[in-house]
Amino acid sequence: MAAQDNSSTDGVGPGRPGARLSRRIFLAGSTGLAGSIGAAPAAADSLADVPPRAPGADLGAHSERSKYVRIDRIPEAGPGMRNVDPDNAINAKTPHQQLFGTITPTDLHYERSHAGVPDIDPAQHRLLIHGMVDKPLVLNVDDLKAMPSVSRVVFIECTGNGWENWRKADPDLTVQHTHGLISTNEWTGVSLRFLVDLVGKQRGSNWMLAEGGDGAGVDRSIPLTEEILDEAFVAYGQNGEPLRPAHGFPMRLIMPGFEGNLHIKWLRRLKFADQPWMTRWETARYTQLLPSGKARQFQLRMETNSVITSPSGTMKIRPGYNRVSGFAWSGHGSIARVEISTDGAKSWKVAQLNHPVLPKAQTRFQIDWVWDGKPTRIVSRSTDDKGNTQPDRSHFIAQNGTNALFHYSAQQTWSIDEAGRVSNVLA
Amino acid sequence: MAAQDNSSTDGVGPGRPGARLSRRIFLAGSTGLAGSIGAAPAAADSLADVPPRAPGADLGAHSERSKYVRIDRIPEAGPGMRNVDPDNAINAKTPHQQLFGTITPTDLHYERSHAGVPDIDPAQHRLLIHGMVDKPLVLNVDDLKAMPSVSRVVFIECTGNGWENWRKADPDLTVQHTHGLISTNEWTGVSLRFLVDLVGKQRGSNWMLAEGGDGAGVDRSIPLTEEILDEAFVAYGQNGEPLRPAHGFPMRLIMPGFEGNLHIKWLRRLKFADQPWMTRWETARYTQLLPSGKARQFQLRMETNSVITSPSGTMKIRPGYNRVSGFAWSGHGSIARVEISTDGAKSWKVAQLNHPVLPKAQTRFQIDWVWDGKPTRIVSRSTDDKGNTQPDRSHFIAQNGTNALFHYSAQQTWSIDEAGRVSNVLA
Repeated sequence: MAAQDNSSTDGVGPGRPGARLSRRIFLAGSTGLAGSIGAAPAAADSLADVPPRAPGADLGAHSERSKYVRIDRIPEAGPGMRNVDPDNAINAKTPHQQLFGTITPTDLHYERSHAGVPDIDPAQHRLLIHGMVDKPLVLNVDDLKAMPSVSRVVFIECTGNGWENWRKADPDLTVQHTHGLISTNEWTGVSLRFLVDLVGKQRGSNWMLAEGGDGAGVDRSIPLTEEILDEAFVAYGQNGEPLRPAHGFPMRLIMPGFEGNLHIKWLRRLKFADQPWMTRWETARYTQLLPSGKARQFQLRMETNSVITSPSGTMKIRPGYNRVSGFAWSGHGSIARVEISTDGAKSWKVAQLNHPVLPKAQTRFQIDWVWDGKPTRIVSRSTDDKGNTQPDRSHFIAQNGTNALFHYSAQQTWSIDEAGRVSNVLA
Repeated sequence: MAAQDNSSTDGVGPGRPGARLSRRIFLAGSTGLAGSIGAAPAAADSLADVPPRAPGADLGAHSERSKYVRIDRIPEAGPGMRNVDPDNAINAKTPHQQLFGTITPTDLHYERSHAGVPDIDPAQHRLLIHGMVDKPLVLNVDDLKAMPSVSRVVFIECTGNGWENWRKADPDLTVQHTHGLISTNEWTGVSLRFLVDLVGKQRGSNWMLAEGGDGAGVDRSIPLTEEILDEAFVAYGQNGEPLRPAHGFPMRLIMPGFEGNLHIKWLRRLKFADQPWMTRWETARYTQLLPSGKARQFQLRMETNSVITSPSGTMKIRPGYNRVSGFAWSGHGSIARVEISTDGAKSWKVAQLNHPVLPKAQTRFQIDWVWDGKPTRIVSRSTDDKGNTQPDRSHFIAQNGTNALFHYSAQQTWSIDEAGRVSNVLA
């Protein structure tokens, strides 16, 4: 195992193997690039080669997107149901093929809801904390803001992320379709352990019910492990500002590393007891149908996973130099290694990881690649710092079968044909 | 010096002294809080105490802010000129009194421009790299995206941040007025060293001219130190998405730790030479008038600084428990320590730093405080990992005089009167 040279720098620098390769290729290919990697326009050395300067518009209360940038989520009604009335949509997927870095833009964070987005006045909203506790409490959002705060950059992933590829592969899917149900934001709020100590959780009350304030009233039983007591928090801030309504305004439970549906939005209640509640969300809904025909309950942690976002489904590449990049994540901790195959999983190279590598957050990877123009398949596989490696599809299906709908974490393969067209395939 | 207990956790946990204090106070004060810290409503233990659940609105392409959240920048025409026509505004300040965590919301990042915001079609935009180089190049934004990328969470600070307090203190200023010209985003782009190696910078060409594409054509000479070659980059991404027009779309120079005006927006040219250009921006504009009457050129680095954002100017507090929080930053590196005084700089306590503490990024601090209801003054002072400590105002003015307009980094004092009103003062 080659050592990962990713801890001592603020990014992928020019001394890295990949950067040396790409610089050599850029230099060999051209003296002026201007969108023509591989081609070689005339050298340019004058301001006549760039557009003139231009006066501008007024400053305002907010800086909006450029009119030249179109960047939207896709509302869907479920696997394979992408052209739906907005009022039938159950989720809206993040356009990863257009994004950079670690942070997902706030308004493009994926959304999954069971009864739409409630319109909550924060002045009226309350959080009840009760059950097997010494001092039941009712808190509003100002109470939370007065308490010691934690901030954390963390991924949230719908347990249905990847469900498009459970049984068959639609070749026309983008990475937004296949992996658009994960996003990463910086969340700010109050530690669960602080709240638990505040109400005086009683001995033996090792389960917590978290209930949302939407019409569906999603509620889940959460085991109070030391990890969850240390890491979970009740958030009121998202990427620096108050939560957006779609993401739980005015307060939401954050459960780093665990199923998205546990990050209860519009949080109205935390209740403590000595056993789980067996709500319909954990008996009928979020259980996993196994090959044996039995259903698995409380499969809460999201697994080690990764996906190449460039090139990815429906893109088109040219022979010669191409950069392969994407992101990896794990509910177990930090990403330790990402490997890339550009020959259909026959051989693998270690990718570079972009700084900073944060636990339970999206981690960017990249590698240089010279495509010879022949049809091939590209794949990524991640390994986390607990030693979990993302399985290939055949091992994943052998273990999990094809009856299930949740926790799909098999390696994602993109096929590239002789024309450079990139398609979603199973491999 | 007490050891900083901030490196081994993801936030301020309940085991910290401050958290213990606040928990004790919360528990002593009430059994149900609901916005009433200090008061004590009846205990609550039923869902009748919280509002009913509600059905919701449809999912969409973007998740927008709540209609209950009003959060705006303030466009200004300069120090003390806050009620201006939008077309006379030269900057728009970030509302830090309303924000959380490290990341500034993209549309609330502060803005400072000299000829408004140009409307640039990215398909037409070009970056010329030339001068004392072997291979001059013209790049478009797709060329940059094809190169190895770096991402970094970094503050940008206008060198005029704090100028409101150079000579006198308006008591009615908020922290948005006094410190609204700093923000922190995650930026993604291509390393300057990669580009320098790509064009083959010639021996002795140790200065770089960076020029913007707005009508004013802001251009600055930048010394190519090893630090700048390692850390500077040409960005195309901001908080995960393409740059916003106000922040340099489609490409911008990022200069971690240095004056905001060096982070050239709408970047159209990098030129290399063996001496600085002495543009009007570095002779007439961004120079510092010293007490001696001489002007200092090329004071490029932003100093160690900090400010308390809660409580801050125009807020009102109550006697009893209050949390004091804010943020610190340094162009030299990471924040090592923040100290808080709640008795007008007579005594100091070490504040807790929120994780993660990133170099050249805003770092959150917080501390518990019990206010006895008597008039007092609260102050913060930061120390960075290079040992630089933020000076008090008298030392700062003794060294820098009152003729200058830039690089104000004296400790910020907020006065609190017997009614709990918080005001901006000099101390």
